[in-house]
Amino acid sequence: MTDMQLGLIGLGKMGGNMRERIRRAGHTVIGYDRNPDVSDVASLAELVDKLEAPRTVWVMVPAGAATQSVIDELGGLLESGDTVVDGGNSRWTDDEKHAAELGERGVGFVDAGVSGGVWGLKNGYALMVGGEKEHVDRLQPIFDALKPEGPYGYVHAGKVGAGHFSKMVHNGIEYAMMQAYAEGWELLEKIDSVENVREVFRSWQEGTVIRSWLLDLAVNALDDDEHLDRLRGYAEDSGEGRWTVEAAIDNAVPLPAITASLFARFASRQEDSPQMKMVAALRNQFGGHAVESAKE
Amino acid sequence: MTDMQLGLIGLGKMGGNMRERIRRAGHTVIGYDRNPDVSDVASLAELVDKLEAPRTVWVMVPAGAATQSVIDELGGLLESGDTVVDGGNSRWTDDEKHAAELGERGVGFVDAGVSGGVWGLKNGYALMVGGEKEHVDRLQPIFDALKPEGPYGYVHAGKVGAGHFSKMVHNGIEYAMMQAYAEGWELLEKIDSVENVREVFRSWQEGTVIRSWLLDLAVNALDDDEHLDRLRGYAEDSGEGRWTVEAAIDNAVPLPAITASLFARFASRQEDSPQMKMVAALRNQFGGHAVESAKE
Amino acid sequence: MTDMQLGLIGLGKMGGNMRERIRRAGHTVIGYDRNPDVSDVASLAELVDKLEAPRTVWVMVPAGAATQSVIDELGGLLESGDTVVDGGNSRWTDDEKHAAELGERGVGFVDAGVSGGVWGLKNGYALMVGGEKEHVDRLQPIFDALKPEGPYGYVHAGKVGAGHFSKMVHNGIEYAMMQAYAEGWELLEKIDSVENVREVFRSWQEGTVIRSWLLDLAVNALDDDEHLDRLRGYAEDSGEGRWTVEAAIDNAVPLPAITASLFARFASRQEDSPQMKMVAALRNQFGGHAVESAKE
Amino acid sequence: MTDMQLGLIGLGKMGGNMRERIRRAGHTVIGYDRNPDVSDVASLAELVDKLEAPRTVWVMVPAGAATQSVIDELGGLLESGDTVVDGGNSRWTDDEKHAAELGERGVGFVDAGVSGGVWGLKNGYALMVGGEKEHVDRLQPIFDALKPEGPYGYVHAGKVGAGHFSKMVHNGIEYAMMQAYAEGWELLEKIDSVENVREVFRSWQEGTVIRSWLLDLAVNALDDDEHLDRLRGYAEDSGEGRWTVEAAIDNAVPLPAITASLFARFASRQEDSPQMKMVAALRNQFGGHAVESAKE
Repeated sequence: MTDMQLGLIGLGKMGGNMRERIRRAGHTVIGYDRNPDVSDVASLAELVDKLEAPRTVWVMVPAGAATQSVIDELGGLLESGDTVVDGGNSRWTDDEKHAAELGERGVGFVDAGVSGGVWGLKNGYALMVGGEKEHVDRLQPIFDALKPEGPYGYVHAGKVGAGHFSKMVHNGIEYAMMQAYAEGWELLEKIDSVENVREVFRSWQEGTVIRSWLLDLAVNALDDDEHLDRLRGYAEDSGEGRWTVEAAIDNAVPLPAITASLFARFASRQEDSPQMKMVAALRNQFGGHAVESAKE
Repeated sequence: MTDMQLGLIGLGKMGGNMRERIRRAGHTVIGYDRNPDVSDVASLAELVDKLEAPRTVWVMVPAGAATQSVIDELGGLLESGDTVVDGGNSRWTDDEKHAAELGERGVGFVDAGVSGGVWGLKNGYALMVGGEKEHVDRLQPIFDALKPEGPYGYVHAGKVGAGHFSKMVHNGIEYAMMQAYAEGWELLEKIDSVENVREVFRSWQEGTVIRSWLLDLAVNALDDDEHLDRLRGYAEDSGEGRWTVEAAIDNAVPLPAITASLFARFASRQEDSPQMKMVAALRNQFGGHAVESAKE
Repeated sequence: MTDMQLGLIGLGKMGGNMRERIRRAGHTVIGYDRNPDVSDVASLAELVDKLEAPRTVWVMVPAGAATQSVIDELGGLLESGDTVVDGGNSRWTDDEKHAAELGERGVGFVDAGVSGGVWGLKNGYALMVGGEKEHVDRLQPIFDALKPEGPYGYVHAGKVGAGHFSKMVHNGIEYAMMQAYAEGWELLEKIDSVENVREVFRSWQEGTVIRSWLLDLAVNALDDDEHLDRLRGYAEDSGEGRWTVEAAIDNAVPLPAITASLFARFASRQEDSPQMKMVAALRNQFGGHAVESAKE
Repeated sequence: MTDMQLGLIGLGKMGGNMRERIRRAGHTVIGYDRNPDVSDVASLAELVDKLEAPRTVWVMVPAGAATQSVIDELGGLLESGDTVVDGGNSRWTDDEKHAAELGERGVGFVDAGVSGGVWGLKNGYALMVGGEKEHVDRLQPIFDALKPEGPYGYVHAGKVGAGHFSKMVHNGIEYAMMQAYAEGWELLEKIDSVENVREVFRSWQEGTVIRSWLLDLAVNALDDDEHLDRLRGYAEDSGEGRWTVEAAIDNAVPLPAITASLFARFASRQEDSPQMKMVAALRNQFGGHAVESAKE
């Protein structure tokens, strides 16, 4: 494997650690961030200048407007033969647009869904990649640097968009798995005869069908706070769960468990449930405080 | 139609009005209630004494222990050829037991699901009846007195248990219909461009697919309190929704909408959601505050 | 009410009946359809020509490309002061685009969700309308002609888009109500002791909480085919259910019952369920035909 | 740890392997099965005879009537101070009855949920145990023999019933996890741009949030049959998923994802969906083939 040169845009928690992991593998990374304290160059233009053609630039900034703005600017700076990777959490439907926009200038486009969080620097990042084979192949040394050791944690999933789509589905599955453990935990906590719910969870870590990394995390959390008394029952969602359900609807695929998990998060963030006010109102109407019918 | 003599046990809101409606139809009702202020007789024994054989006794007390106790006592007082109707909200699985218990003494048993609430006295009660034809036929004059005018509002649904089962399913359907309107209302209220949600609901009362008595009640409720600000999003459930889901599970029938409606009520009654605490805890674990794995 | 002149584009089942109902109310309708057999004019240009300014044109063609094409063409033909109504099943997110496009030329835009189907000609069409007050007011005589008699069946729901949004939510509610009755019916049919399911449904038409027009239709259907033996359990969806769920997701509103109803339709159209193949595959793996772990 | 003597009733796939694993740990097992080819003794009476008091008897037969019959017979054979373990898949609500029945004769009762399937012999069985401490402590050498090595795979979850309850919830969680992967797989398979769904699944086995033993099994299954073409989308359920939902309903705990998973299995086993016939029938009614209302 030859050492490569990579431009990396976005040096936040993820991007910064990825720069470090790629460098440790012997590649050269020129990083750019709006924050000059962490940036290697002063501007995108300087970053592009410092890279030898054909260039490879990895974009690692928030999905949506920020990514669009970087793609647009890169479109004006890069040359035919260069390649851009979007490693952020972009919606897969943006990938084709970005590929087309860059493709008009002869610049290749690869989308990469990246999983790994805070353990990625040490253990590697799982990568799901979409794009044309020639573009993906050029990036292979970088993907190899980032991915975990061993045969897993990397896939060329398909065409442009397939990487982010696979990562999105990964997150949808994650929602339902988290919900599964959460439902089970609540039910166990509710039953008086089950006296050691935390130890039940711990015991499941070997020999059971439901052992998993998420289960390990659940046990960690219960070791910190046995009945989770210090937490509120409030869960954000990051967008990828929503996109998963929308993709399913667009394709007439029923996703009952993943959608139930998403809706449970929505409901958890409501101070009071408007829909349950209406249910309560209808129940009151039965109770006799109402005239016979709204129409009379 | 010959005038009948009926014993009626339980003279609460429902039972009291039913006595009145049956009397207005020209039948004789001897009512018993634990509350002497409303009772016509001092005891069940006196009630049975005053009825000419073959007797017909309508039980209208809370489901469960209260109904069981009355059935047990009647079993000791009635004679072969008499008939008991359970018009309360008993679980249908109790009906066969009660029929068997009374049947050993030659006493017939009919179960009757009753709908109508506060409008029943004026408009009649919808009746869903289960039992042997000979027992049901004997009660027909009473059923005719109670039911609404016209061809609807009464059915001999089938064998013992079929009346309560039908009423239970009626309530399950009611849960999902209430939830349907409630979900739609919440979504409309959420969108800024929809400025007159109450008037949208009102407009639906004619010419639409979703016009219904429940919709009329919803408009009533919105006329009282346009945005339901005076209510909490908190809804009880009465048992019949739960039984509906349990009957479905016993019969491997999927009931996704009815069950979702029941679960929404459960969630509405939680101060904080334990399962969402676990989801939040797992999200925190991703955030890097955790050791790598609970197992290390 | 002064008689109005209206251009009506799209004379299919809905549009043709609407033309008739508006004419019966004394207004002048010039209709255009691609099918010359039903069209009053040969082209959109001729239709616009024949209307006196300020013109009012009602678009009643399929949502999406067909509506877009008509709006585009009208944009080139109409003049400042004219008004366009989109009475088709357009997605509400299209309304703002159409309003902006026409607004640039001074042409007003109103969106109208229309319910009524085959009974609309006789009984009137329920109308949910969005747009600026001045544009809506101009159309009032036409709305009055179309709507059912009496105080219901018409609402000015809010700004542009609010009409189609309200109609969309109407359809979402409709999905869950249909599902509610369907679930109840399946459960009743499954229980041997309930011998007269059709009569149970019929009895519910008076005196119950769940009486509705949809229930009346269900009884109609069961009168035609008591156990629905002549039908397949296969249900299409029309787009508005999907949009309702997507709008809910965009606004973080949980819609469990409506979404369950949509997913049930998706599943009904699958010859075989891919996701259940995976569940079956995992169950097989437990059964011992697998090596210990895919990783070894 | 002293070697123990254990009576083991039920020598099927699970029981036979458990006998072997306990023997390998140095304990004495006297096994009884209705099948004389695998049984060590000719009858339960002989088994009880051969054990020295205080005896320990492990029941490993199908839940329900078979287990009840063995418990009843043991109740007549055992003496005060003996202990019975029910290691089958009994419903937790049976455990208290069995404990009371045996307790009247001074016989202790422990319930044990056992997970492990075909890998249990080699890797150990995960055990979730309920009962009084003194009874559980007596069994500890056997539990230690059966469980996996290391700190996991065994828990004394609480009082009588807590073992089976915990195992039941384990299975409920398992349903939702299987459904989560299955939904994700179906969605990925549906999208053309994702060309290597199997490899996406394989890649997830390291570095992702959703890595698990079930994921490993899914990859195994896809290695056997990449698109699962050889399977039907048909999944049985074993009872424990149903009991989990029923326990949740009894305790007003919302379980949307687990219940959705159960209902998906129910639906997968229907040749045709009755409820979707009703939805189709209602849609037909809209289409104009119906009279206006069932009531006219």
